[in-house]
Amino acid sequence: MDRLVEILQIKIPVIQAGMAGGITTPSLVAAVAESGALGTIGAGYMNAEVLKSEIKQVKQQTDKPFAVNLFATNLQASSKDIAEMQHVLNPFRHELEIKAGKESIEVTDYLQEKIEVILQEDIPVVSTAFGVLSQDSIGKLKANHVTLIGMATNLEEAKQLVDAGYDIIVAQGCEAGGHRGTFDVNTYKDGCNLGLIVLVQELSANLSVPIIAAGGIHTKKQIEGLRAIGADGVQLGTRFLVAKEAGTNRAYRQALIDASTADTVITKAFSGRPARAISNRFIKEVENSSVATLPFPIQNEMTKDVRAASKKLGITDFQSLWAGQGVGAIDKEETAAEIIKSLGM
Amino acid sequence: MDRLVEILQIKIPVIQAGMAGGITTPSLVAAVAESGALGTIGAGYMNAEVLKSEIKQVKQQTDKPFAVNLFATNLQASSKDIAEMQHVLNPFRHELEIKAGKESIEVTDYLQEKIEVILQEDIPVVSTAFGVLSQDSIGKLKANHVTLIGMATNLEEAKQLVDAGYDIIVAQGCEAGGHRGTFDVNTYKDGCNLGLIVLVQELSANLSVPIIAAGGIHTKKQIEGLRAIGADGVQLGTRFLVAKEAGTNRAYRQALIDASTADTVITKAFSGRPARAISNRFIKEVENSSVATLPFPIQNEMTKDVRAASKKLGITDFQSLWAGQGVGAIDKEETAAEIIKSLGM
Repeated sequence: MDRLVEILQIKIPVIQAGMAGGITTPSLVAAVAESGALGTIGAGYMNAEVLKSEIKQVKQQTDKPFAVNLFATNLQASSKDIAEMQHVLNPFRHELEIKAGKESIEVTDYLQEKIEVILQEDIPVVSTAFGVLSQDSIGKLKANHVTLIGMATNLEEAKQLVDAGYDIIVAQGCEAGGHRGTFDVNTYKDGCNLGLIVLVQELSANLSVPIIAAGGIHTKKQIEGLRAIGADGVQLGTRFLVAKEAGTNRAYRQALIDASTADTVITKAFSGRPARAISNRFIKEVENSSVATLPFPIQNEMTKDVRAASKKLGITDFQSLWAGQGVGAIDKEETAAEIIKSLGM
Repeated sequence: MDRLVEILQIKIPVIQAGMAGGITTPSLVAAVAESGALGTIGAGYMNAEVLKSEIKQVKQQTDKPFAVNLFATNLQASSKDIAEMQHVLNPFRHELEIKAGKESIEVTDYLQEKIEVILQEDIPVVSTAFGVLSQDSIGKLKANHVTLIGMATNLEEAKQLVDAGYDIIVAQGCEAGGHRGTFDVNTYKDGCNLGLIVLVQELSANLSVPIIAAGGIHTKKQIEGLRAIGADGVQLGTRFLVAKEAGTNRAYRQALIDASTADTVITKAFSGRPARAISNRFIKEVENSSVATLPFPIQNEMTKDVRAASKKLGITDFQSLWAGQGVGAIDKEETAAEIIKSLGM
């Protein structure tokens, strides 16, 4: 484990996952860093100005290193062929008393601008999901001595990351909450969801870079077990969702505390990309409609207003309740420091 | 780990899974037993006479203890409402040059008769899947000092087994090959497939009986890791499929050696019960037909002749190529003794 701690300049080999959508507040990232683990700003969907502001706020609260998480490819998409899906979503909007959906959708993710901010702010670690950064971006980050962490769901993806110059691989097991890191969603299939004991075994046996295990991890014993299998460290998302410092809304927190181990499903209903969440009305009704979800990030953008209104009203029916299979073990809120302490490292 | 070895009177805490359908030859079971692990006769689908003969053959080759695996509930079913599915299967039969499917199906599993054989033959360990044995059967087996091992896919199922008097629980992770052990297939859902690091953690934290981890296990490191998480021992199926002593046919063996980690899917196409197999033509074509699979064991009985003919012709297209996610790590045939030695315990 020593090499991971040394590369990342942290005390314990635990990473707080860079969950997007307002979860990773500056207070959470700073508290994790202060506890000796690696805090991460979930900068997917953020624009460059917001990212800059978040980085500055973290820096006001800690002088320890922390990471920024990005989607590896720029989300640049637009679509006018969305009428059928709007027809599925509009009844939810009616129920939530918000206006009907738009006739066209546009998404921009400002990836290049965010990389410039990361360079200006001297961020030491960048983690990415959904693919491999461009050689241009990798070159710029490497020139600035940034450590690159890439998420892989199988050996093939991990090899692509290593070949492109990534330093560390996150092995995302099928147990993990939120989006599957699968590079090419068009070839996504059952077999893309490998259990962590298989994935960590395969990556650590075939690669020489450090491996971070992610998915369903909640306890010290699991970390010790994954270390024995070949992981250098672990990444936890779901447990930090109920950290007192996290931006998770009240209804979502309660759903996490109430959920049982078997309550999560993998769905494309929210974003068009397979992702693990606690099952709810939105998932069931979108999946039961005969309408196919639109590709990521179009579906994600379309469902944004519905999810936001559900959150604002404090109900869980139409929120994306991302959660890993370890959610059954969550029974209370804790501070980030308490969570890290309980991992006993 | 000591308690498991002590209860089962074996040397190392490894169990060869009781795979049904002619895989667990007497030579395999005896070789596993002679190597100090627990060999298991897969007696699902066998009648009592065949089981008796198999037991006697194992006893001729070893005086070490071994187990018999049963389905926990008698498979007693018949159906005449099978025309639609026969319509899907008949083109396969045509291709395989066997006669068209029957108009009605009947299945009997002779569970009571097999339990009588087990008692007569003084078998020390019985393992079951798909539910809980009747109190009458449990009473008879316990009176004969038989150790009972039950397979569970979640905490609720494990508690039912323990409450009924089972001594040991097999925690079947989503990684596992072959049939999911899910008790009630009508309520089967995504959440019924828990990663092993989550399931072992949950069962070992909530139950006092020994826990055996099963699914995707191929290496000593994985065993050490699962022990750290809370398992007392492990059960391996897929790795023993390529044991030289196993009854696995040549084409199936080659498919196991050739398959990659991502090649397995969970399907109801073969038996009506969710099960993990290497994806092939049969799965794709049955799933792409608009016809729903019939319930287990009707679907299983209906597809039997097709699978048998495919096996006889040495082709994999229409065989049930059961395999766990660890299949990618299989690259050669070995003796049972070599497999157990490689687990290094």
